[in-house]
Amino acid sequence: MYRPQIKVLDCTIRDGGLMNDSHFDFDTVRAIYTAVCASGVDIVEIGYRNSKEMFSPKKFGLWRFCDDEVLKRLTDGIETNTRLAVMQDAHKANAEDLRPKAESVVDLVRVATYVKDIDKAIRLANNATDKGYEATINIMAISHARDRELDEALQQVEEETKIIACYLVDSFGALYSEDVDFLVSKFQRYLKTKEVGVHFHNQQQLAYANTIEGIIKNANYLDGTLYGLGRAAGNCPLELLIGFLKNPKFDIKPLLRAIGREIIPMQKTISWGYTIPYMIAGMLNVHPQVAMELVNLPEDHADRSDFVKFFEKISGIDA
Amino acid sequence: MYRPQIKVLDCTIRDGGLMNDSHFDFDTVRAIYTAVCASGVDIVEIGYRNSKEMFSPKKFGLWRFCDDEVLKRLTDGIETNTRLAVMQDAHKANAEDLRPKAESVVDLVRVATYVKDIDKAIRLANNATDKGYEATINIMAISHARDRELDEALQQVEEETKIIACYLVDSFGALYSEDVDFLVSKFQRYLKTKEVGVHFHNQQQLAYANTIEGIIKNANYLDGTLYGLGRAAGNCPLELLIGFLKNPKFDIKPLLRAIGREIIPMQKTISWGYTIPYMIAGMLNVHPQVAMELVNLPEDHADRSDFVKFFEKISGIDA
Repeated sequence: MYRPQIKVLDCTIRDGGLMNDSHFDFDTVRAIYTAVCASGVDIVEIGYRNSKEMFSPKKFGLWRFCDDEVLKRLTDGIETNTRLAVMQDAHKANAEDLRPKAESVVDLVRVATYVKDIDKAIRLANNATDKGYEATINIMAISHARDRELDEALQQVEEETKIIACYLVDSFGALYSEDVDFLVSKFQRYLKTKEVGVHFHNQQQLAYANTIEGIIKNANYLDGTLYGLGRAAGNCPLELLIGFLKNPKFDIKPLLRAIGREIIPMQKTISWGYTIPYMIAGMLNVHPQVAMELVNLPEDHADRSDFVKFFEKISGIDA
Repeated sequence: MYRPQIKVLDCTIRDGGLMNDSHFDFDTVRAIYTAVCASGVDIVEIGYRNSKEMFSPKKFGLWRFCDDEVLKRLTDGIETNTRLAVMQDAHKANAEDLRPKAESVVDLVRVATYVKDIDKAIRLANNATDKGYEATINIMAISHARDRELDEALQQVEEETKIIACYLVDSFGALYSEDVDFLVSKFQRYLKTKEVGVHFHNQQQLAYANTIEGIIKNANYLDGTLYGLGRAAGNCPLELLIGFLKNPKFDIKPLLRAIGREIIPMQKTISWGYTIPYMIAGMLNVHPQVAMELVNLPEDHADRSDFVKFFEKISGIDA
């Protein structure tokens, strides 16, 4: 028996873009977009709509900005029920970068924020809904959120926005299933008129399991990426999630094909997935950036596999 | 707060031996044994005590047989509270291969069995306890066990043996958390005088999450391997499990060191971990052998990344 309220979102290119400054070939992105649409996944988030004042178009690829013209070309000629999303960072995006909905192929704007920036996020989300888009707010680094501040933010989100869903985002891959239970229940307590979404990272190999736990607790917006491509240890693998869900509208085969043709070859240039430095960062509830530096050291660097040194540094034992 | 009843078992060399015919260097195994002992892990299973009539010593390495002389050299001079285990396959081992406990450094004999071979397993487990060892029975391929047969087997195990624990073994990596709940509860219902153990495979990236679910449901015997080394997608990573458990007797650092020095270098010759063929096998609840054949094809073989073809073959869509 399946739950028709569940909405699955693929964010392969958006989250994966954190590993290569959003430099994906246009044809690769078009192939992935086509596959996700063919699979019946509800929403595909193709990148960021972030500010060109804060990110240089010389340094970052197309998918950090997702200009409406680029997205029009991307989606041209593809008939689909899959909705198109872009992400705006609350502290790195401008309201003016969003044209009225009538001038764009974007359906949904997801605003990513830390708890402390919730007022900026609400402003951007309201900008999106005022211009005719659907919107969500995605609260990042949720494992660092303090309870009182989070309660207040959720109350604001409920009262001050017209978003369709609010996500808890485990940026550090630090949550266990009991934390998921606690947080999804908290979100539901405040968000009487919105859905709850979940987005997990795989530092402790729990991204998929925590997504299932979210489903059990009635979270209805679920994020995944092809083969887990995403920052650090990556995300909940979309193929696993689709394999789990029973809704007959989903077809896993286009996703498997795209993984074989588009994603596996990327392993030559992008390193994501479980490693010991990411595991340590997740276990100790810190940002994966410090572990990414270790993982990206030259192959012959002695620190690369000195996991005890890294563990002592991160846990403060050597302080 | 921790649960002192929990016993963690490392089976890196035993389960990893399924990927290289148990050909590990003696010094490597000694280093891993030393590290596991130093970490405070309760039990270390170093290999199989299987029959030399059924496995050729020309083809298989030392750790498929674990002769008492070899184990004596392995453990010589290492003071530890960690107990030493070997595994006997119910259908591939002889009772006579076990000497009386007084002549061996082995503490625990784990008997691995399919439900259908439960009478063979009981005979081998009783052989071990009669000779002075502790014993467990590990029921493999649990996702293929039929309910009525499993009920009967568990009843027999309770009535006819003196084992300390009975494990459910998810050989195919097919179980979801709700299956773990169901099976651990069933085991507990029959096994009034034994502990319940859990051993998971990572075909769907759920080995660690399912182990936590087992803990929540009061399973007290838990299997893990360093960096997940084990058959196909591997096992519950021991470092994650030790990072989760709060018992102050555990020290993760010797494990991290051994992973850096002994396990990571093995990636050059042994391929384990999550791949799409394993995921498909786990999702469809079939033995990983068929996927291992695909994973081990030459790099340039077209079938290697034709996941749709493999999916259709395994799911019978092309039949």
